[in-house]
Amino acid sequence: MALHALETPAVVIDGAVLERNLARAAEIARRASVALRPHVKTHKSLMIAARQIAGGAVGLTTAKCSEALVFIENGFSDVLVAYPLTDPRKLARLTGAARRTGARLRLIADSEAGVTALGDAATEAGMKLEVMVKVDVGLHRCGVDPGGPRALALARRIETHPALVFAGLLSHAGHAYGLDGPDAVRAVAEAERQTMVTLAERLRAAGVAVPVVSVGSTPTVWLAERFDGLTEIRPGNSVFMDLTQVSLGVARRADIALSVLASVVSVNDRFAIVDAGSKTLSSDKGPHGSDRLAGYGLACRLDRPGEDLPVAGLSEEHGFIAHGGQPFVVGERVRIWPNHACPVVNLARSIVFLGPDGQTEPRPVDAAACVA
Amino acid sequence: MALHALETPAVVIDGAVLERNLARAAEIARRASVALRPHVKTHKSLMIAARQIAGGAVGLTTAKCSEALVFIENGFSDVLVAYPLTDPRKLARLTGAARRTGARLRLIADSEAGVTALGDAATEAGMKLEVMVKVDVGLHRCGVDPGGPRALALARRIETHPALVFAGLLSHAGHAYGLDGPDAVRAVAEAERQTMVTLAERLRAAGVAVPVVSVGSTPTVWLAERFDGLTEIRPGNSVFMDLTQVSLGVARRADIALSVLASVVSVNDRFAIVDAGSKTLSSDKGPHGSDRLAGYGLACRLDRPGEDLPVAGLSEEHGFIAHGGQPFVVGERVRIWPNHACPVVNLARSIVFLGPDGQTEPRPVDAAACVA
Repeated sequence: MALHALETPAVVIDGAVLERNLARAAEIARRASVALRPHVKTHKSLMIAARQIAGGAVGLTTAKCSEALVFIENGFSDVLVAYPLTDPRKLARLTGAARRTGARLRLIADSEAGVTALGDAATEAGMKLEVMVKVDVGLHRCGVDPGGPRALALARRIETHPALVFAGLLSHAGHAYGLDGPDAVRAVAEAERQTMVTLAERLRAAGVAVPVVSVGSTPTVWLAERFDGLTEIRPGNSVFMDLTQVSLGVARRADIALSVLASVVSVNDRFAIVDAGSKTLSSDKGPHGSDRLAGYGLACRLDRPGEDLPVAGLSEEHGFIAHGGQPFVVGERVRIWPNHACPVVNLARSIVFLGPDGQTEPRPVDAAACVA
Repeated sequence: MALHALETPAVVIDGAVLERNLARAAEIARRASVALRPHVKTHKSLMIAARQIAGGAVGLTTAKCSEALVFIENGFSDVLVAYPLTDPRKLARLTGAARRTGARLRLIADSEAGVTALGDAATEAGMKLEVMVKVDVGLHRCGVDPGGPRALALARRIETHPALVFAGLLSHAGHAYGLDGPDAVRAVAEAERQTMVTLAERLRAAGVAVPVVSVGSTPTVWLAERFDGLTEIRPGNSVFMDLTQVSLGVARRADIALSVLASVVSVNDRFAIVDAGSKTLSSDKGPHGSDRLAGYGLACRLDRPGEDLPVAGLSEEHGFIAHGGQPFVVGERVRIWPNHACPVVNLARSIVFLGPDGQTEPRPVDAAACVA
């Protein structure tokens, strides 16, 4: 079906742009000699995950138990849950799936309670669990202070637990999303690298083996100049990119693979009202609850890709496109480039791939129903 | 299962508060002698909709085609889609479901193109469709100018179409959500009433029967002092209420039926990090894309209901609760009162009812998969 004939709202993925973004991630990893473990929370798609593995990714990163289960149970054999899980029921589901499928499962912890919960789950399952220590490199969300004693204490606690294996250190420099441009992002990426490498060396000097030193975030991975001492990168958003990445200087508009197709349902003197609101685009003005961007996206007609009309407001089912006097008619289609791609996919049940011939192919958001 | 034993994040509905809110809506309608047609986009629940009908509601209001289909196909016999639909495929699904089930279906239009699409769909289905004209009473989203000639022109166009029936006028004073307090909301409600009644009289004077004059929005319906001349109210959010309604002076904290149960997953010097982020709470700071509220909700420990710690930030899977020096431990449960209840349910797959005995019962969000 051609783009203009789709029912709306629809989340559209430009296949050629997606391929370029996938190739770029693989190329960054190859040139840096690090493993690529993309974060699938952005796309939640078995098909895209399979493309990532085919392109050289060593495994996947997931954000929660239910998401990890979808990928493990669909044949992905190496999955990291980059979230400090402690609920024994979730952990039992994960160890059960890993045992059944033979998948390699890696988890993280940043507290004694977390290590204890993982140790109990591994013991209960009669298996060894790989555990990384999460390090706070500046977002001040989860993670141990890299300058303090807890990283070593937790690593030792993991190392000496009969059912756990210490797999290394992991960080996410999400504070890069609050910065002013590419130079500042580059500086954060380098600070993160130095912090992580220094901490890994400190642990090694204390006799702890640190096989993996893993960093994440699309901005820092995309713009970093040095990767030495790191062993793994975990970009997520980069498969699709969005206006946040453009505002940071990480991507160009032409690098954004994800847009929302919407229909004009009403026109008034200031706005073309479209059928994509906060239940399609989310209310995000930027990641991590930031107010980085002014509106809720940029819109254009199908035949005017450079139009860039601001989505000035959102109700749940309505977007307010400030038309600036440009005529719009009811039924007309527009494309909207969202501020943040990840929550858009999270709100969808299918994504539509747009091929070079202008034809579209719908695919499920396989991990759409994953809440906990 | 007791509240503290639930897996998190979980959307929890306090059953007693829900019942009070349902009864209050019915009471408002009864005292005003207007029909109650609650908007189900807030709860998306067949069970709650059935409670509303049992309490005297004449039918349901829905926000989109897919949502309406869930309720029609599950036996609800009178459904309004309060959205200007024009896609013939969506309209064919709705007329098909209405024919199959015998349900009464009511739609809206605010443009000639809209009326034409509805007329074509009704003709195609070989049935009569009831159509209301949407009136803009100040939100400047959809709707005709109540002072202009278009309401009468559209009503006549509907009235004279062989397959359409003009059912009346409909408005939504969503701009009430941008106001400063209950007096301002009351004034908007009264202005809406006068606008709608005046327009209905103008149409009647021109020879057009206007059977239904329908107004919506929880704030205006809850606080309005006069309903004369109106025939129908469509509150939605009032089943659950939220911090937005509290900030408007529409509800008290004790009227909020919906909260999110979350677990502390990490603690740092400023924040208790919990497993409810923007993919659970949404990033809404208020309806219609407003920045009405400062943070992303208020949180408390299960045993300290008055604690009110601000949810200062959100990542996709993390909430940042500013603990202000209060000790939190990993694994501890908190309840979060969200800014806006509607998108929270939209992100969930189940809601958990909390009974007076402290026990919980999970129920599906029946219209959870409804996107278009």
